[in-house]
Amino acid sequence: MSGYVRALAEHAREASLVLAASDGELRSRVIHAMAAQLDAQAERVLAANADDLARGRDAGLSAALLDRLRLDGPRLAAIAAALREIAAQPDPLAAVGAAESRPNGLQIERRRVPLGLIAMIYEARPNVTADAAALCLKAGNAVLLRGGSEARASNAAIAACLHAALREHGLPEASVSLIEDTAREHVLELLQLSDLIDLAIPRGGEGLIRFVAEHARVPVIKHYKGVCHLYVDRAADRARALSLLVDGKTSRPGVCNALETLLVHADIASAFLPQALAALAARGVEVRGCERTQAYSNAVLAATDADYDAEYLDLILAVRVVDHLDQALAHIARYGSDHTEVIATDDPAAAEAFVRRTRSSAVMVNASSRFNDGGQLGLGAEIGISTTRLHAYGPMGAQSLTIERYVVRGEGQVRHPESLGG
Amino acid sequence: MSGYVRALAEHAREASLVLAASDGELRSRVIHAMAAQLDAQAERVLAANADDLARGRDAGLSAALLDRLRLDGPRLAAIAAALREIAAQPDPLAAVGAAESRPNGLQIERRRVPLGLIAMIYEARPNVTADAAALCLKAGNAVLLRGGSEARASNAAIAACLHAALREHGLPEASVSLIEDTAREHVLELLQLSDLIDLAIPRGGEGLIRFVAEHARVPVIKHYKGVCHLYVDRAADRARALSLLVDGKTSRPGVCNALETLLVHADIASAFLPQALAALAARGVEVRGCERTQAYSNAVLAATDADYDAEYLDLILAVRVVDHLDQALAHIARYGSDHTEVIATDDPAAAEAFVRRTRSSAVMVNASSRFNDGGQLGLGAEIGISTTRLHAYGPMGAQSLTIERYVVRGEGQVRHPESLGG
Repeated sequence: MSGYVRALAEHAREASLVLAASDGELRSRVIHAMAAQLDAQAERVLAANADDLARGRDAGLSAALLDRLRLDGPRLAAIAAALREIAAQPDPLAAVGAAESRPNGLQIERRRVPLGLIAMIYEARPNVTADAAALCLKAGNAVLLRGGSEARASNAAIAACLHAALREHGLPEASVSLIEDTAREHVLELLQLSDLIDLAIPRGGEGLIRFVAEHARVPVIKHYKGVCHLYVDRAADRARALSLLVDGKTSRPGVCNALETLLVHADIASAFLPQALAALAARGVEVRGCERTQAYSNAVLAATDADYDAEYLDLILAVRVVDHLDQALAHIARYGSDHTEVIATDDPAAAEAFVRRTRSSAVMVNASSRFNDGGQLGLGAEIGISTTRLHAYGPMGAQSLTIERYVVRGEGQVRHPESLGG
Repeated sequence: MSGYVRALAEHAREASLVLAASDGELRSRVIHAMAAQLDAQAERVLAANADDLARGRDAGLSAALLDRLRLDGPRLAAIAAALREIAAQPDPLAAVGAAESRPNGLQIERRRVPLGLIAMIYEARPNVTADAAALCLKAGNAVLLRGGSEARASNAAIAACLHAALREHGLPEASVSLIEDTAREHVLELLQLSDLIDLAIPRGGEGLIRFVAEHARVPVIKHYKGVCHLYVDRAADRARALSLLVDGKTSRPGVCNALETLLVHADIASAFLPQALAALAARGVEVRGCERTQAYSNAVLAATDADYDAEYLDLILAVRVVDHLDQALAHIARYGSDHTEVIATDDPAAAEAFVRRTRSSAVMVNASSRFNDGGQLGLGAEIGISTTRLHAYGPMGAQSLTIERYVVRGEGQVRHPESLGG
């Protein structure tokens, strides 16, 4: 271990103490100033991004990776707009929790405090640099950012904007600390710093996330994958169900809230599936189905267990006909990833049973899986999605970067007055 | 790995699905029935406990350990009373979170769900068996209990009462699963079951907790130690400060919310310390102080860095005179364990600064450190205390065993309507 990351983390930790005691109004102004700096320095940021893109093309990066890496005027403006949305949200530290007066006169209050120092470990997307910094700052946390080497110049240019805004308002630049040397050993070093880092959030491919989860001595919040299901109930409105299917599978197949499996109630299969398979075929979606599904089209390949387990992230869909809701629920319990499940139904009892008996972070009744996203759910941006039921479940906004503590006020109360005598 | 624990955990996992869909009213009735069973079978439980105690004495267990292990009529009645208190609490799963309507008409609701399956790993205290089972059940979780071998017979007898209550109300016995074979290899097996166990909570000595934290592949919530501070401000009421000191240090020195260090503002030291040192000496408390403290009594030994770091759990106290609040805060930041800090002051500005600038799970203004306890803070019993700022911070009651998820209701809304055309 070189100590390079420890030194950065120590400074960031000191900055986190300043932020924890800072005013919410001030933190909001700084985030507005960050957006303004991104606007003002757009040319520099785009030039740095062009360098990254040129290097990436020379290195033979895939088109998908280059697309994630690419910034342009509108994308940069969208990043600034997300920062302004975060700045405009209420201060998560000002939220007053339950307060209570005890029989002995003690006043018990629950007050939100920041987590402290958050480490973000991510890949090619430079927007994460700005989003994560703004969300952490909003909640009074310092952040240690380790982006992918392919976005090195873009991240440095964005960080320069963020630092200018922090300086402008007298907050320490170390509040947003960028690990500029992207050697992988530094990630390992970072993951050991359990005395300095309160939480690590990895964002990227499953390989990165498993690497972080396996090596971390600091707490990690993560999600591995999204195997999202649409269950078309026998009481579904077929036109709606078709919309949910097409939007869920095809509007952006490469993201974690896209649909991967369609489950169809046997009673509606003969009315719904031919139409659905035609719509999918028209959009170039390859279908892998159970035997009953295959009966509706020669183009349907046979689905295996591996298909029901797969997060395709591509124009491929697994389809299965089920006899009843219970069978759909059993399928989801076995193959699901606790990410997002959708039911299309006009039967309130079926909807409520589906809601109660699925365990995923988000359950949608007659709405697209693609809405499981921090922005769509009203959180502004999101710093990540959790598919483990601990601390946060689903998209994480600024409030997920805080925790409640106890503040107790008394007038000298003691627990064992009898111990005072003598 | 023998698979013995995996098989138990698989059954408990299945039970957790039943509990997650169960009614809060029913779960409350079962907890009442558990209390009734403990009352009705008190003789059997006490006889089993007598066996454990006899075995423990033969094995040469310390008096302190035997005391933790010992049950008697009043202690068993207190356990049953704690269960009734938990049963009477509001259903944590019924708490309605923030609800919101989005501009596109989506109804976003946050609904609490159980964590799933909780593993408790603890030592000699048999009351944990009942407390943990009741808190987990209250929140709709199944629990896998691994108590210490010295309490084997007591835990089995208590578990028999809990199972009788579950059976009586048609809930699976595996909802409360006791690992009866206490071989240590089974703990290791348990800690690897990340596909079945949602959270592990170790309770006991620092050795057990470090063992769990180091070997766990499942999430762990824990606290290592409580180095709790009392800061006597220059504006403190001296009589009150003395009560807080004596109660905090001497009412039960062996627990984690006992005081370990006293910090005294220099302006009040000459008025407060002689009185405080006399009161401590009268109660047999050994004092290790800074040079300025030593000036007040020949009996005060010199404090070292190790003393400021120590959780004595004994009648020993470290004492330091500080020049101002900032120095007290710096001391706590350096040596504290994020457990409990107390300020004695009549100055509201000093109190507020102390609250804002300490990071511990509980901060007390003019109240004893000994109140940082689930029962005292109104949670009923507590399943553990967390001193890490993730998921829970401070004493954990039933609500800390739940998490919010998203329930979204729509009328067929999709994210990209343009993708539907064609």
